[in-house]
Amino acid sequence: METTQYKIGIVGATGAVGQELVRLLVKRVFPASEIRLLASPRSAGKEINYEDFTGTVQETAPEAFEGLDIVIFSASGGISKELAPEAVKRGAIVIDNSSVFRLDDDVPLVVPEINGDALAEHKGIVASPNCSTSIAMMGLYPLHRAFGLKRFFASTYQAVSGSGAEGMEELEKQVRAHVAGESLAKEVYPHQIAFNLIPQVDSFMDGGYTREELKMLYEGRKILGLPDLKASTTCVRVPVMRAHSMSINAEFERPVDLEKATAALAEFVGSEVIDDPETQSYPMPIFYEEKVKCGVGRIRRDSALENGLAFWIVGDQLWKGAALNAIQIAEALVERGLISAKVDSV
Amino acid sequence: METTQYKIGIVGATGAVGQELVRLLVKRVFPASEIRLLASPRSAGKEINYEDFTGTVQETAPEAFEGLDIVIFSASGGISKELAPEAVKRGAIVIDNSSVFRLDDDVPLVVPEINGDALAEHKGIVASPNCSTSIAMMGLYPLHRAFGLKRFFASTYQAVSGSGAEGMEELEKQVRAHVAGESLAKEVYPHQIAFNLIPQVDSFMDGGYTREELKMLYEGRKILGLPDLKASTTCVRVPVMRAHSMSINAEFERPVDLEKATAALAEFVGSEVIDDPETQSYPMPIFYEEKVKCGVGRIRRDSALENGLAFWIVGDQLWKGAALNAIQIAEALVERGLISAKVDSV
Repeated sequence: METTQYKIGIVGATGAVGQELVRLLVKRVFPASEIRLLASPRSAGKEINYEDFTGTVQETAPEAFEGLDIVIFSASGGISKELAPEAVKRGAIVIDNSSVFRLDDDVPLVVPEINGDALAEHKGIVASPNCSTSIAMMGLYPLHRAFGLKRFFASTYQAVSGSGAEGMEELEKQVRAHVAGESLAKEVYPHQIAFNLIPQVDSFMDGGYTREELKMLYEGRKILGLPDLKASTTCVRVPVMRAHSMSINAEFERPVDLEKATAALAEFVGSEVIDDPETQSYPMPIFYEEKVKCGVGRIRRDSALENGLAFWIVGDQLWKGAALNAIQIAEALVERGLISAKVDSV
Repeated sequence: METTQYKIGIVGATGAVGQELVRLLVKRVFPASEIRLLASPRSAGKEINYEDFTGTVQETAPEAFEGLDIVIFSASGGISKELAPEAVKRGAIVIDNSSVFRLDDDVPLVVPEINGDALAEHKGIVASPNCSTSIAMMGLYPLHRAFGLKRFFASTYQAVSGSGAEGMEELEKQVRAHVAGESLAKEVYPHQIAFNLIPQVDSFMDGGYTREELKMLYEGRKILGLPDLKASTTCVRVPVMRAHSMSINAEFERPVDLEKATAALAEFVGSEVIDDPETQSYPMPIFYEEKVKCGVGRIRRDSALENGLAFWIVGDQLWKGAALNAIQIAEALVERGLISAKVDSV
């Protein structure tokens, strides 16, 4: 039996997430008859190689979407807003990593392990959540299923990969400058990030929360289908390369049981439990680069909440936080028969 | 008029906190006729110089306390337990930085700006709180006075100075090894700290919280005089040199007012407010090394608590978290006339 093959486009192919999208399509053997690499004019002509795959970057433009079945957007919100409809118009399903469509009623916001069923209602665009939100959900969802999530407090420890390849370069450069005894230059962040913490991710909104902090609340509500969920998040950039971590205190409707909580997290397809005080085992960001699952540890009854649990969760920002979730959406669209290839292989 | 001069001893004088104790005594012109440097036998004979001060380290032993008016202990809990009573027996007041006496009913646990009155009840030993606790209190106390603290959630971002000079050296060495392309050696921490996060500070206790996390609750209750206070803390070591940061969600008895909260924090002697979204201003650890006050920012109404505030606080672990608070206790003992010098200057 021949497998249907799809023509897939990647907008923002030269970025940190774009590169991971290419790698994951190859690694996970996505049935692609074409991977079309799209980026800004200044990247056009650049070659991207990964294992057997070789491709040349083309300029992103409406005509560049012709013939594609799926287009994954991982550029700016502005690019998504302008060009996603052009891709849809040409018959492609868009999987968008930007924030512009996430809260649209017409656009499913999907973490496949949680609300894959929402994919059936897509009207051409499917949104992939904010990176911190996707990772937080990997811990909150299995606990929600077990005890009914009511409210949570999250403090994030976010890696520089969240600012793209430039963020990672800036941390590396600052650390090298420190060792060389030179002054530390800032280009990506408003403040030094090496040996420092920046308690701001994304821009400030009314009420004093940042956009990133509010995403956790509003996107979380939509993904979990809990319009009354309460949350308060503080997002902090830390000098870590590419895995995000979070400290979460969560309150539930029903009494919590520690064994049941641990089992729920261990059995959930998106998370694994690393939690052994005796061997000082817990998830840490250096061990979660290029991991499909998010790691949960430090699971304990919360000492300040009636039906509460405190835990620590870590996940690869570039993978579950972005590229992997987008690829998983593409895979789910295929598995659920929600996409048909324009040209089938014979 | 002649000022009374005191003979002061420092146990653990060669450690990171010990060095800051010497510097702060000199910097703050503490009325000391003698600063006696005490440490382990292997440090005996070592010279410590700071500005006009020069001293030679002696071995810590009961007889070394003879003639001293104040002894500040900043070594291990074991040393404090064994030798603090010896110093008291010889007529000195002990200010102890270790955790061994902090929860004793006979020992005041003091942050002078908060509960200096408790000093009057000392029976020879005064305890200085855990570093994260002291810093958290600088934000929580003024807000407690304004609105009545009921409960809080804290996630810490703790600097390596909390593990002493060795912790700082380990981070520096690991960063240098990374830049040199060498493998990263671990001596102080069970896991790599450069480019990583370790969600464990101090040892694990029953219930899954660490000792450090429980200190925030139990020491906080004692300092604030709130036996029913609830708190849930997650303590995390981050690759930052010497200022601790915390993300706190606090719930109060009375309705909160943002302007009043900010004013309370700005007017309190122990804290300052750095909080301007427009200029991306908030406290950050690199700017809080060698600062007397703790910095509070990101102050906002908490979106998940009825009468709640979320905020971010940063303070120098070696100063307000340890050495400075101990010196402030010594200063308060003098100001309040709770100590008399064995030999007055004439």
